[in-house]
Amino acid sequence: MTLTVRLGARSYPIIVERSYAGVPTRLNAMGFMRVGWVVSHASLLARHGRGLLGPLRRAGWQLETIPIPERESSKSLAMAERLIRRLASRPTRGVPVLIAFGGGVIGDLAGFVAAIFRRGIPYLQVPTTLLAQVDSAIGGKVGVDLPQAKNFVGAFYQPRLVWNNVAVLKSLPMRQRRSGVAEIIKYGLIADAALFELLERRLDACLALQPAVISALIERSCAIKARVVSADERETRGIRHQLNFGHTIGHALEAASGYRRWTHGEAIAIGMCAAAALAVELGLCSRAVPERLTRVIERAGLPTRASGVSREAV
Amino acid sequence: MTLTVRLGARSYPIIVERSYAGVPTRLNAMGFMRVGWVVSHASLLARHGRGLLGPLRRAGWQLETIPIPERESSKSLAMAERLIRRLASRPTRGVPVLIAFGGGVIGDLAGFVAAIFRRGIPYLQVPTTLLAQVDSAIGGKVGVDLPQAKNFVGAFYQPRLVWNNVAVLKSLPMRQRRSGVAEIIKYGLIADAALFELLERRLDACLALQPAVISALIERSCAIKARVVSADERETRGIRHQLNFGHTIGHALEAASGYRRWTHGEAIAIGMCAAAALAVELGLCSRAVPERLTRVIERAGLPTRASGVSREAV
Repeated sequence: MTLTVRLGARSYPIIVERSYAGVPTRLNAMGFMRVGWVVSHASLLARHGRGLLGPLRRAGWQLETIPIPERESSKSLAMAERLIRRLASRPTRGVPVLIAFGGGVIGDLAGFVAAIFRRGIPYLQVPTTLLAQVDSAIGGKVGVDLPQAKNFVGAFYQPRLVWNNVAVLKSLPMRQRRSGVAEIIKYGLIADAALFELLERRLDACLALQPAVISALIERSCAIKARVVSADERETRGIRHQLNFGHTIGHALEAASGYRRWTHGEAIAIGMCAAAALAVELGLCSRAVPERLTRVIERAGLPTRASGVSREAV
Repeated sequence: MTLTVRLGARSYPIIVERSYAGVPTRLNAMGFMRVGWVVSHASLLARHGRGLLGPLRRAGWQLETIPIPERESSKSLAMAERLIRRLASRPTRGVPVLIAFGGGVIGDLAGFVAAIFRRGIPYLQVPTTLLAQVDSAIGGKVGVDLPQAKNFVGAFYQPRLVWNNVAVLKSLPMRQRRSGVAEIIKYGLIADAALFELLERRLDACLALQPAVISALIERSCAIKARVVSADERETRGIRHQLNFGHTIGHALEAASGYRRWTHGEAIAIGMCAAAALAVELGLCSRAVPERLTRVIERAGLPTRASGVSREAV
């Protein structure tokens, strides 16, 4: 299935498939040079590299893989510079393509490097986590962290394509699957009652990655993200803010706990419960909303409240 | 006098004046927050800082100055990171403004930092060299160098205003004035016969910075740059390439000589002579063109040919 982020000349497709077999045909139709780099992790390249690189190489692509250490601290300016020096060391005629093959860290880092290398080269998002497939790979928010602040350095720079292969999610640990589910819950709550109901009904199938169910959930989530980004690319029109539901408190919890205790999805789960409770207090919604939200979050194996973290720090 | 770079929502004025007295009125009309940083060199701040900062502070602006070492190697990712950490260390509500106050190194570095700090904050170009006033401060090409390659890291990120105070050029050494004249010659040759003739007639007055003459030359040069950038912001339509007249060979000469022997303007002067000679050989123009070009370049005290540099390296 193909969705589209509509941004005029910067429009791009989001593809949800069960393999990478169709990637070369799609890319060749876009007129790329068939030369590029794949930024990823060594473990990911070992596990899924052949699935992506095989078809591309058979189609004549010359690709160099660049493995990045698998840790949050890889999202740094120092790593961006290392990556850029690596790209600059290979003389190329024309414009090569950068392929971000991994989770949020890879997508944010490689997207940022693509944004600033030679004043911008094309890049593709090939996300391998549920969270990246439904959220971070779409929308062009790229960047790195400073030691004292997350996402303080970056750009709005859209990819030329997002390719979601749901089959690679099989190797995701359960905790990361649950983390991705938190963002799907968010989409359901902010924009799509049918998506929310589907998740409530098929939560076990979702966590087990039953193909039809997980594909449907990813497609509906991506459709919402695509629609919101199309309407407010740079978060200047008060529309893209919707995607931050649960993120104000969620980010605060992550920061207050040094980004070690909760995954992003777990922090967002708590943040959504807190935001919904606040909405009730402010008279903006009925008690039924946080109750139903809390129920599905609990069933997804995600936390609904924070304890042991300083209220002042948050 | 006010010119405009026309880029829709990203349009901005280029102001050519003989002081900074009008800066606060202009900025306040643009709705900025009156909080920001001035990135510059210590020597420049000592000499002209009061002229710029005085009026702004009296108008209620809270400005912090950030001096950068006065050398080409300040245009690095490491310096960009240092600058960004400095910006991040000051918590601000709202969106502060970055003011680039200096020559090409300051403009390129500060503009790049403005492009990537918090995914882009507004910045102003207040160029203090002739070359920056007529060329590098306009058009949004910002970036830093890698050790092995100039301008390999950067962005197209337009300033919100360019303020050219011709009075500060007085402290420019003659070699730097001549270097700026090379770009004015370029504008005359690619787009404005009257500008070329004015320069031929008033070259001495230009180098002596006679106010009426230098203002007219800067205004006409800026008008051409503004027109070209308005028509082809990202150099994708074959129009902005015109501004590179003399730069293909000029850049090669700079690189082959390790950026130490010639100023940018000197290398471009040689490059223009070489390009014009090539044009004659290709039957694209008459011999009269390089002859007239060479004459004005010589009279400006700029080199017309390179010797002692390896042809292979170039």
